[in-house]
Amino acid sequence: LNEIQNIVIIGAGNVATHLGLAILKTGRRIVQVYSRSEENARLLAGKLHSDFSVDLKAIYPEADLYIVSVADDAVGEITKSLRLKGKLIVHTSGSVSMDVLRSCSENYGVLYPLQTFSKTREIDLSTVPLCIEANSNDNLQLLELFAKGLSQKVIEVDSEKRKILHLAAVFASNFPNFMFTIAEKILAENKFDFELLRPLILESAMKVQTMNLEEAQTGPAQRGDEAIIMKHVKLLKNYPEFRVIYKMLSDGISGKRIKRFRGN
Amino acid sequence: LNEIQNIVIIGAGNVATHLGLAILKTGRRIVQVYSRSEENARLLAGKLHSDFSVDLKAIYPEADLYIVSVADDAVGEITKSLRLKGKLIVHTSGSVSMDVLRSCSENYGVLYPLQTFSKTREIDLSTVPLCIEANSNDNLQLLELFAKGLSQKVIEVDSEKRKILHLAAVFASNFPNFMFTIAEKILAENKFDFELLRPLILESAMKVQTMNLEEAQTGPAQRGDEAIIMKHVKLLKNYPEFRVIYKMLSDGISGKRIKRFRGN
Repeated sequence: LNEIQNIVIIGAGNVATHLGLAILKTGRRIVQVYSRSEENARLLAGKLHSDFSVDLKAIYPEADLYIVSVADDAVGEITKSLRLKGKLIVHTSGSVSMDVLRSCSENYGVLYPLQTFSKTREIDLSTVPLCIEANSNDNLQLLELFAKGLSQKVIEVDSEKRKILHLAAVFASNFPNFMFTIAEKILAENKFDFELLRPLILESAMKVQTMNLEEAQTGPAQRGDEAIIMKHVKLLKNYPEFRVIYKMLSDGISGKRIKRFRGN
Repeated sequence: LNEIQNIVIIGAGNVATHLGLAILKTGRRIVQVYSRSEENARLLAGKLHSDFSVDLKAIYPEADLYIVSVADDAVGEITKSLRLKGKLIVHTSGSVSMDVLRSCSENYGVLYPLQTFSKTREIDLSTVPLCIEANSNDNLQLLELFAKGLSQKVIEVDSEKRKILHLAAVFASNFPNFMFTIAEKILAENKFDFELLRPLILESAMKVQTMNLEEAQTGPAQRGDEAIIMKHVKLLKNYPEFRVIYKMLSDGISGKRIKRFRGN
């Protein structure tokens, strides 16, 4: 098996950026970055000491690995125009099937990092679970070797199971962030700064790094404290949506059947 | 104003423990710990180098401050039996009015730490917002001086506003933990370990320490990616409760009116 040395990154968003930087640190080369946006392509190429292109047809044909790292709903369109003649190509999306890459090359796979990436924060990729999948054993081994250079936590996950992980990630990250947003709105109406909740939010996430979730669950719903739940529902009188969410999640925590919402 | 030096702690749970330890570090003395449970009283008294009692009538009458740190729904009962003749007494509950302490003494207040405390984790109280309230200006000053020795973030919050903070804390901590629990159940059904989500959960909380929440919000609902939302809803076919929660929160994030749940 040939080791992967020269890499083309297609996409210039947060995942592309963090992945590219982590790859550089392993001593491999990013030879080219592609983005529709010249500004983004140039910016990331600068960070990765690579060339860049805004033309899919000008993508270098002789790299060892092509990483398609664009929004989930843009993967399909990109791959329509890419023909890579046997070169290994992977995408990084949680919810997109591996098979969308079949038209690009005979060798394809997925490298899905189970993490949230943002412009302003560095990520230590070595602790991030990398979920890999490939269309052949050889490609899987090649990809595994590559991924293990980036992270201590590499697991093989097929496209169906990867969708499950992506769904769980929505509950673990997107929905909690929405809960924070609701908390912020409640505070703002009462002239409190969101700053006040930051230590609590961080500690709540720290707790579940070591504790089990049942043990970590606290609050009125967990205690079955109906009096406080009723007070909270009253306090939410100006927010019918938040009130419904509060009731539903409190019922979920306290283990009540959520009958009234069934079938809606 | 006399500074507070000798303190009695009523309660031996997580808040009592962490508060007691933080108070010790400021050079003050915990003279006594009360708990109904002799085991808990003895254990905490050991940690705080104090005496202990399991009899409310045997509580030392001459301390400078009495801290009632028990479950919200137990504060009322404790205070029924306590008569402290002018000594300053505070409770630490988010949702309990200051006035429940009126029967105990002429001098009373609240010291509410906006944080989640657990047995197995140390807390740096200096970064935890302490919300204080008192029945007079003198008591407020006394309490403020005391609280500022424990935390850099001391704010005056009346009983009504404190309930708002407590409600926001439910959204910021209890509900996210429930989201983690749902994610764990989805993973477990598919033989995945919850461990996989821990880096994501931690990073999601780290992000909002510096980023604003809108910027931090990612995922299919945020992008308006209906195709993935539909796939996720299908994947939740065995979990009608989670499916309803998924839809409702996705609608909330994408800004749709949550009409169908109104009035339920």
